Amino acid sequence: MNTQAPWFYSSGLSESATSIVLAEEEARHAMAARRLGTGDAVCITNGRGLVACGVVENIGNRPPQVTVTLHEWQTLSRGPVVHLASALPKGDRQKTMLDMATQAGMGVFTPLRCERSVASSGKNAIERWQRVTIESSKQCRRAWLPELNTETPLEDFLRAVSPKTQIFLASPTGTSPIELSQKIMHEELVILVGPEGGFTGPELDRIRGRSSLEIRLAPTVLRTETAAVLGVGLLSQLQSRAG
Amino acid sequence: MNTQAPWFYSSGLSESATSIVLAEEEARHAMAARRLGTGDAVCITNGRGLVACGVVENIGNRPPQVTVTLHEWQTLSRGPVVHLASALPKGDRQKTMLDMATQAGMGVFTPLRCERSVASSGKNAIERWQRVTIESSKQCRRAWLPELNTETPLEDFLRAVSPKTQIFLASPTGTSPIELSQKIMHEELVILVGPEGGFTGPELDRIRGRSSLEIRLAPTVLRTETAAVLGVGLLSQLQSRAG
Repeated sequence: MNTQAPWFYSSGLSESATSIVLAEEEARHAMAARRLGTGDAVCITNGRGLVACGVVENIGNRPPQVTVTLHEWQTLSRGPVVHLASALPKGDRQKTMLDMATQAGMGVFTPLRCERSVASSGKNAIERWQRVTIESSKQCRRAWLPELNTETPLEDFLRAVSPKTQIFLASPTGTSPIELSQKIMHEELVILVGPEGGFTGPELDRIRGRSSLEIRLAPTVLRTETAAVLGVGLLSQLQSRAG
Repeated sequence: MNTQAPWFYSSGLSESATSIVLAEEEARHAMAARRLGTGDAVCITNGRGLVACGVVENIGNRPPQVTVTLHEWQTLSRGPVVHLASALPKGDRQKTMLDMATQAGMGVFTPLRCERSVASSGKNAIERWQRVTIESSKQCRRAWLPELNTETPLEDFLRAVSPKTQIFLASPTGTSPIELSQKIMHEELVILVGPEGGFTGPELDRIRGRSSLEIRLAPTVLRTETAAVLGVGLLSQLQSRAG
């Protein structure tokens, strides 16, 4: 199946659908940013592994509406998962982090509440983040949307994390990712990223109490969002090689 | 030498200086964002390898001015260099790219003019970028500022690049960075990143004509700035291991 055409998102897409109407926001994007016209090829994903390709059948203006006739369907497996569990940076950096981490291969995101946290998730955060991750997923043609969790205290996160998950701690004094490449054992990897100023001593004790590997993402101290993006990118690489 | 105190930039710093006055913008940053007071520890770098640490001696308000008495000096070697040669993304993404690539270890930046370029450097670009990279370098405590070049057509760039430099091309169909780790041979590495839509066929022929390695930075298609940040981060890791 050729999936090179522009991608759009429709949560209602099912395997039995032979046509689909893109909802208002997606239709507006198709018409304004992508300048699609009747007969153009498009791909639609439901964000849960299903991708269908087809052509634009009809375009309506008020309200914006794009009808697509579907010809081909494909279900992609989710594969191994990199889970980003990170303190939240301030303001626009949250959006930057989620956008770039999604492109780098983030499968799950859990915002962590830490002792030195400088920002919290605020009202409607999950809806805002979902808009960002849908945009990024379309951009990089991902058939699985990242799973977005609500803000969780670090302690609760460590208690709840499955024993089948391998935990990595982003740390300037950690081991180089290349050295760690032999140690990837699990299907699900978590990268833990602290707030500006880092995790506190007691937080580090708790993380180290739960067996974890310390990974050095760069030769220098990194901002939260940079550590998050590099952490997801490096672990995705290690994981795809281990798999 | 303890370099944990907040860092500031002063191009005029020399090894013989026992005190230094921070210029207006740096002084404002010291007072407003860092809330420094008399007696606080600080480190100053000239961005060319020299770092000096000392304490705030005096603070003036109009104009903002911070006098620092210096006690310790250290000169750091530059080490191997990762050179980012990338098409420019649009708008704010330029700033994001330079900020995060600096943190990830970028030593030189050359903006490339490509056939599908969507943005060019514009007026006073180098000055704007320098403000961004100084801020990031202070943040992550780098004693060497990235070198910033003017926008260069891809063809000229390839012609001018030293034979001692190893070129990597960011490509979704390239080899995993881990597989490439045995192939790092040079002190200076270049990562080439194309515009949205990628390099054209003739551009790819030119790049491949100049011996280069193709590197896959993620399992999916990446935006320019994400490829740039992951490329710099991954090559820095490979290089630090090779060195």
